[in-house]
Amino acid sequence: MIDTRPAKTIFIPKGFSFSSGCAGIKPSGRPDIALIACEPQASAAAAFTENQVVAAPITVGRGFLRASRGKVRAVIVNSGNANCATGAHGLNGCKEVCTQSARLLGVPPREIFPSSTGIIGVTFPAEQIVAALPQLISQCEMSEAAARRFADAILTTDTRPKIASSAFQIAGEEVRLLGVAKGSGMIHPRLATMLVYILTDMAATPAELRGLLLDACADTFNCISVDGDTSTNDTVLLLASGRSGVTLTNRAARKNFQTELKNLCRSLAEQIVSDGEGVRHVIRLSVEKAKSRVEAMQVARAICHSPLVKTAWAGADPNWGRILAAVGNSGVRVDPRRINIFIGQQKVCERGQFCEFDRVRAHQDLSGRVCLVRVELGRGSQCVTFYGTDLTDDYVHINAEYST
Amino acid sequence: MIDTRPAKTIFIPKGFSFSSGCAGIKPSGRPDIALIACEPQASAAAAFTENQVVAAPITVGRGFLRASRGKVRAVIVNSGNANCATGAHGLNGCKEVCTQSARLLGVPPREIFPSSTGIIGVTFPAEQIVAALPQLISQCEMSEAAARRFADAILTTDTRPKIASSAFQIAGEEVRLLGVAKGSGMIHPRLATMLVYILTDMAATPAELRGLLLDACADTFNCISVDGDTSTNDTVLLLASGRSGVTLTNRAARKNFQTELKNLCRSLAEQIVSDGEGVRHVIRLSVEKAKSRVEAMQVARAICHSPLVKTAWAGADPNWGRILAAVGNSGVRVDPRRINIFIGQQKVCERGQFCEFDRVRAHQDLSGRVCLVRVELGRGSQCVTFYGTDLTDDYVHINAEYST
Repeated sequence: MIDTRPAKTIFIPKGFSFSSGCAGIKPSGRPDIALIACEPQASAAAAFTENQVVAAPITVGRGFLRASRGKVRAVIVNSGNANCATGAHGLNGCKEVCTQSARLLGVPPREIFPSSTGIIGVTFPAEQIVAALPQLISQCEMSEAAARRFADAILTTDTRPKIASSAFQIAGEEVRLLGVAKGSGMIHPRLATMLVYILTDMAATPAELRGLLLDACADTFNCISVDGDTSTNDTVLLLASGRSGVTLTNRAARKNFQTELKNLCRSLAEQIVSDGEGVRHVIRLSVEKAKSRVEAMQVARAICHSPLVKTAWAGADPNWGRILAAVGNSGVRVDPRRINIFIGQQKVCERGQFCEFDRVRAHQDLSGRVCLVRVELGRGSQCVTFYGTDLTDDYVHINAEYST
Repeated sequence: MIDTRPAKTIFIPKGFSFSSGCAGIKPSGRPDIALIACEPQASAAAAFTENQVVAAPITVGRGFLRASRGKVRAVIVNSGNANCATGAHGLNGCKEVCTQSARLLGVPPREIFPSSTGIIGVTFPAEQIVAALPQLISQCEMSEAAARRFADAILTTDTRPKIASSAFQIAGEEVRLLGVAKGSGMIHPRLATMLVYILTDMAATPAELRGLLLDACADTFNCISVDGDTSTNDTVLLLASGRSGVTLTNRAARKNFQTELKNLCRSLAEQIVSDGEGVRHVIRLSVEKAKSRVEAMQVARAICHSPLVKTAWAGADPNWGRILAAVGNSGVRVDPRRINIFIGQQKVCERGQFCEFDRVRAHQDLSGRVCLVRVELGRGSQCVTFYGTDLTDDYVHINAEYST
C-alpha cells in the first residue's frame, strides 16, 4: 500500500539541526521561514525543475552549489512567495538573504542553499526575511520537534506535512535518513512547488550523492503527476553530513544506502501525490511490456495527464476506452491489437477490444483511496510504475477562485 | 468576434442531397443515422485523427478513398456508437453498412465513406443500421431542411448543431460552400469526436482538394483544444461535386476558394470550441514573435492544455504567472526575459516580470464569453492563433458520472 501519512518515528541524522519562524510573508501569520543547519558542512547534490522559467533561488542555489563544489552549511527556505518572475530585484533579494544568513553563521554565502515556494510574480520581501534571521538561527535545535516544525513551516496549501525517515545498519554502524517534502498544495495564485530535503549522516562526495539522487528521483519524484504542470521552483536536495562515519566505499554499503534512499523518496512522492489538490483517488499505474523505460514513461504520462481519464477516475468509472485512447495519443507507435488493460485484478480490455468483466467489481476497485491500473503494451519487457490522480471538482474550485 | 452559433442562411452546393433517420442506437430514440448523397460522384479529400488507436470507419474510409482514387458517392454516418475497439466484428459491421448502402445506391462499396461517433468499446449494431438504410436513402432531399436534419442527426452531447455556409462568385459564376460539424460534446462513456463534412460545387481533383483541405485545417481545426484529448474517430471530409462548372485552374480562383474554405473551417472550429463541454470562456490565444509556426503552436498547446491555466480562466483570474510557467514547460527553449504577456489590451507581464496593470479591468476582460490573451516570445516573427477553453466544474461533472 502507498504512504499517505508522514512518518510517525523520526530519526535525526547526526550533524543536522532545524529551526522555523515567522517573517510575516503569509497573511495567516503562520510560520513561513525555516532553516536546516549542517555542522560541519555537508556534501550536497540537487535536482531542479526542468521548467525554462525558473525562480531566483533556483538560479542562485545552482550557482552556489557549483561555486562551493557541492558543500552546504545551511538551507534557508521561505514559504508564501515563490520569488519567481521577480527580475533583478528578486535575484538580489535572494542573494541578500543568503549573504546575511552566511554572515550570522560565519560561513561564505556560497555554502547557503536558498529555496522559495508560494505566489509567483509578487515582490520578494527580502527585508522581512533578513530581519527574522537572527532569531531563526539562534533557535536552531537538533531535535525531532524542531524537524517537525521545519516540515510545517515549508508548507503552503498542503493539508499535512510530508516526512519519511529510516535508520539502518551498514557494516555494523547505524546510518540515518530523514526526508522532508512539501508539494501538490497550491497557494495564492497557486503554482505547485515540490521542495524536498533529504538528510543523512552517511559520508559521501557530492558526485556520489548526485548519482544516487538522480537514480532515486527517476523512479519516485519523476513518476508522480497531479496536474501535469511542472513548477518553476521544484527542488530535491540531498545532504550528507558524514557524521555516522560510514562511507560508500564498498558495493554492499552503496546498494544498501541506495535502497533505503529510494524507499524514502518513494514514501515522500506517495505522500505528495495523495495530498494533491482535490485528490480523492490515487492511481498506481503500471505500464508494462514496453520496448524501453522511456516509452513506458511516455505512455504513463499520457494516461495520467488525460482529463478524460482523470475525470473517469473521479467517478470510479472503469472506462477503459479512454485509457486506450490516451495510449494511442501518447506518441508511442503502439499496435492497439497488442494492448491489454487491467483494473484491479480484472482484465477489462484484451488485444485492444472489449472483453467480459465484472463492472460492479471494477467500480468498487476504483472506489478505494488507492486504485491499481495496469496496461500491457505488448512491445517488449520494460515497465514503469507511475502515480496519477483523479481530476475532481474540488481541484477546479481550489484553482479557479479569483485571486486578485 | 468568434462564431458560436450555426449559420442562419444555408447555401446548398449543387449535387448534394441529405437524409437522416433513426436506427435505434441512441437510447433517447433521437435521430442517429445520416446520409449525404453526391450526384454524380464527388472528388474527395479527408484528414483523419492522428491517434494510433483508430475506429473501424477510419480504417475502412481511408482504404475506400484510396481504392476509389478520391471519389465518393455517399457519406453514411451513425451517432451513438464510435465503432472503436470493436475488433474484427466492428470492421466487418462497418463494411457491411457500406456494402448495403452501395447496393441500394447502385455504386461500388469503395465510393461510400463511413463515419461513426459515440461510445467506445461497445458492439457495433450493423444490423440495426442496415435495416434502416432503405428508408434513409429513399428520403434523400436536396433541401435546406434536410441539411439541417443531417446536422442534428450526427450530434451526440453537443448542445447545438454546427453549420457554416457561403456563396461567392468566381469568374462570374456562383460557387457554394457548406460545412457541417459535430464535436466537443461527449457521449456515454464519452470520447469527444470531431466529425466535419464540407461540401462544394466547385470542380477540383482529389489532389487539389487535399492541398486546400490540409492548409485550411492547419489554421483552424488544428488550432482548437477543449481538453487536449484527440479522439479515435476525428474526420474532416471535403467533397466537391463540380456542378458549379467552376474550376481551380487559375490562381485567382484558387485563392478566392481557399479563403472561403478557410473562413468556413474557422467558423466551424469556433462553433465546436464554444460548445465544448462545460465551457464558459473561450480564449483566443495569440502566440507571437516565435522562431517558427511549429514552436508557436507548441507553446499555444502547452498553455491551452495546462489545467492551472484553464482553471484560472474559469475564475476569470488574470494569473499570468501560470501562463508564464506553462510557456516554460512547453519544451521550447524560451528566454523568460524576452516574454511579454497581454490580457485584453493590457500588458500584464513584461520581460518575464510583473508590471503594473489594472487588475479589475483584466478580470472584466476575462469574464466575457470570448477572451483575448497574447504571448510574445521575443524569438522571431512567426505567430499562431489558437482557441482554448476554461476548465470548469461542469466539465468534471459531465465526465465523472459513473457510466456503467
